[in-house]
Amino acid sequence: MLNFEFKNPTKIIFGKGEISKISREIPKTEKILVLYGGGSIKTNGVYDQVKAALEGYNWEEFGGIPANPEYEVLLEALKIIKEKNITYMLAVGGGSVIDGVKFLSAAANYEGEPWDILKNGIRTEEGKGLPFASVLTLPATGSEMNSGAVISRREIGQKLGMGGPGLFPQFSILDPEVIRSIPKKQIANGITDAYTHVLEQYMTVKTSATLQDRFAESILQTLQEIAPKMMEEEFDYDSAANFMWSCTMALNGLIQKGVISDWAIHGIGHELTAQFGIDHARTLAIIAPSHYRYNFEAKKEKLAQYAERVWNVTEGTTEEKALKGIEKMEAFFQSLGIKTKLSEYTEDYQGTAEKIQEAFIARNWLAIGEKGIVKPEDAKKIVEMAY
Amino acid sequence: MLNFEFKNPTKIIFGKGEISKISREIPKTEKILVLYGGGSIKTNGVYDQVKAALEGYNWEEFGGIPANPEYEVLLEALKIIKEKNITYMLAVGGGSVIDGVKFLSAAANYEGEPWDILKNGIRTEEGKGLPFASVLTLPATGSEMNSGAVISRREIGQKLGMGGPGLFPQFSILDPEVIRSIPKKQIANGITDAYTHVLEQYMTVKTSATLQDRFAESILQTLQEIAPKMMEEEFDYDSAANFMWSCTMALNGLIQKGVISDWAIHGIGHELTAQFGIDHARTLAIIAPSHYRYNFEAKKEKLAQYAERVWNVTEGTTEEKALKGIEKMEAFFQSLGIKTKLSEYTEDYQGTAEKIQEAFIARNWLAIGEKGIVKPEDAKKIVEMAY
Repeated sequence: MLNFEFKNPTKIIFGKGEISKISREIPKTEKILVLYGGGSIKTNGVYDQVKAALEGYNWEEFGGIPANPEYEVLLEALKIIKEKNITYMLAVGGGSVIDGVKFLSAAANYEGEPWDILKNGIRTEEGKGLPFASVLTLPATGSEMNSGAVISRREIGQKLGMGGPGLFPQFSILDPEVIRSIPKKQIANGITDAYTHVLEQYMTVKTSATLQDRFAESILQTLQEIAPKMMEEEFDYDSAANFMWSCTMALNGLIQKGVISDWAIHGIGHELTAQFGIDHARTLAIIAPSHYRYNFEAKKEKLAQYAERVWNVTEGTTEEKALKGIEKMEAFFQSLGIKTKLSEYTEDYQGTAEKIQEAFIARNWLAIGEKGIVKPEDAKKIVEMAY
Repeated sequence: MLNFEFKNPTKIIFGKGEISKISREIPKTEKILVLYGGGSIKTNGVYDQVKAALEGYNWEEFGGIPANPEYEVLLEALKIIKEKNITYMLAVGGGSVIDGVKFLSAAANYEGEPWDILKNGIRTEEGKGLPFASVLTLPATGSEMNSGAVISRREIGQKLGMGGPGLFPQFSILDPEVIRSIPKKQIANGITDAYTHVLEQYMTVKTSATLQDRFAESILQTLQEIAPKMMEEEFDYDSAANFMWSCTMALNGLIQKGVISDWAIHGIGHELTAQFGIDHARTLAIIAPSHYRYNFEAKKEKLAQYAERVWNVTEGTTEEKALKGIEKMEAFFQSLGIKTKLSEYTEDYQGTAEKIQEAFIARNWLAIGEKGIVKPEDAKKIVEMAY
């Protein structure tokens, strides 16, 4: 097991009817800015619950934070924060809104040009960000219990990560009831996103970190178990609760401690979103199987462990089990209505592999993934396999 | 899944050679009291590492905190804290030392009679305890990453629990290398203690909290996997690391969220320690199998799940699997050299069951365990079954 450090101070308030606890957690003296996305919270009842909880507070609101939170939009919110002397932010939304609020938390107390935080990778230390909390409306990214964010700036075609120990939400409210009104397509994306988050931290080499491996496998198995119920028309509270908690645990730092990570699937997937506008989660389902087939030698032992423990594959050699594992994974994504080949999303896929190779070189991503095994020419070949 | 709240702000610093990081974590301006137990840290090298890390700090020390930390001894430490204007405590030890320091953290800022904290169950709120951290030397209790403590006062024959959100260690250093010098008997106790901590939070009713169940099973499986290597003469770092991290995860709050707990084994076990001085962990191994046999109807479905998932028992009815699960559990404790019958520890066991029934009544423990299914007469029968 590798040495590690772990600290996650976010308070999770989980369950039915818990949105009202906002008023217990935020002091009445704070000047609050409530931030949200496209406005679905106004039709699904979440906005009304937040409003009721904020009765007696001094608060403002800022809506319209888009998916892949956009720098220019966030700058407008930053202006309001400064003009209105906001002291506390409440993100009501999914990963995009919460990520956007993390950027604002860092930017509010930053003296220089806000873009520098992203460009120069300036980390926000404990106690240095503007305090914020979240009400999660879309389980997927885990942003509600971690300190990282990804911000886009279309103007210059960039999408950059940021973070730091000062950017954990003070608290996050996870009420599985919010999942009732989420379209099935987004549920499928959320399950795929969380599942791949686990894979990126797990599907590397055989490790001596037995407990972390088993925790990762537990999340994968839970997502597999709840997936069919989540795709049915009827809402099942317990399945929704396990879905929500699995998404959080998939990326709150716990399972990556003491092991090496991969993240090449995300690296390549981001380029497919940039080129074709394919949903983030779907790009992961396109790339993951090809990535594992292409890097089979490096990963076959872990793939076989995955097949054995997560899918109960008991027969065959290590190689046979490993291949079976990849097939099971593909079939799982497909069972959610997620297509796993690029050509199923666009007819215009020829040349994509070369473009991604060039993009990797342009970004100076010369060796990503576990132990740097994915070089630009490997990314090209992986994408070709995913056509 | 039941509604729950979860917050655990302790920073874990895990791995070989990490004790030196004390100096990175504690500001040089603090006046530190280092507290420890019987002095084994002076022979195993831990004291020297702590001393080296505290070079340049203003610090005092207080040794001699006994197992089952004793109130009278802790009052002596409290006097030093007040006389020397201590601003930060560093617990160097196992659960007893860390528990003792938690009491001191609460007592240092408490105006009244310190015993009231225990007698009246006064909780220490966030920011209200004297800050403290720990260097763990004996994995078992999980005290290094939770906010609870148990304190004994022999004078009046009491052993009481305490806690509160202000009593989490600020950081805990977990260096598996400290396990090298721990006697095998204590290793066996530590494995049994952590294993039973998981059982108390897991072996209740069938639950819809799928992820929590799987996390609990992950800890049980990991402890089973590392146990044989931990009992061998030769030290195996990775097994020790998994042992240490499993003990922490067994009682840091995570697996108990959203489910009901039991804790009847601990309730009965404490009485066996009080009457016969049997090691805490060994009392748990005596009581657990009888508790599960006695409350078989209430627990058989979960016992069968345990047998299936943790021990790979695939054949038989629910009842047969459940019984097999109890046998496997007993055999596991025995594989550690832990005897599972009271008569194997003392010839003087007759009448114990009645005494425990009386003790339960005297404590007003009229219905403990999951859903209150263990009444004083049930405790009596469970102990009789454990003779």
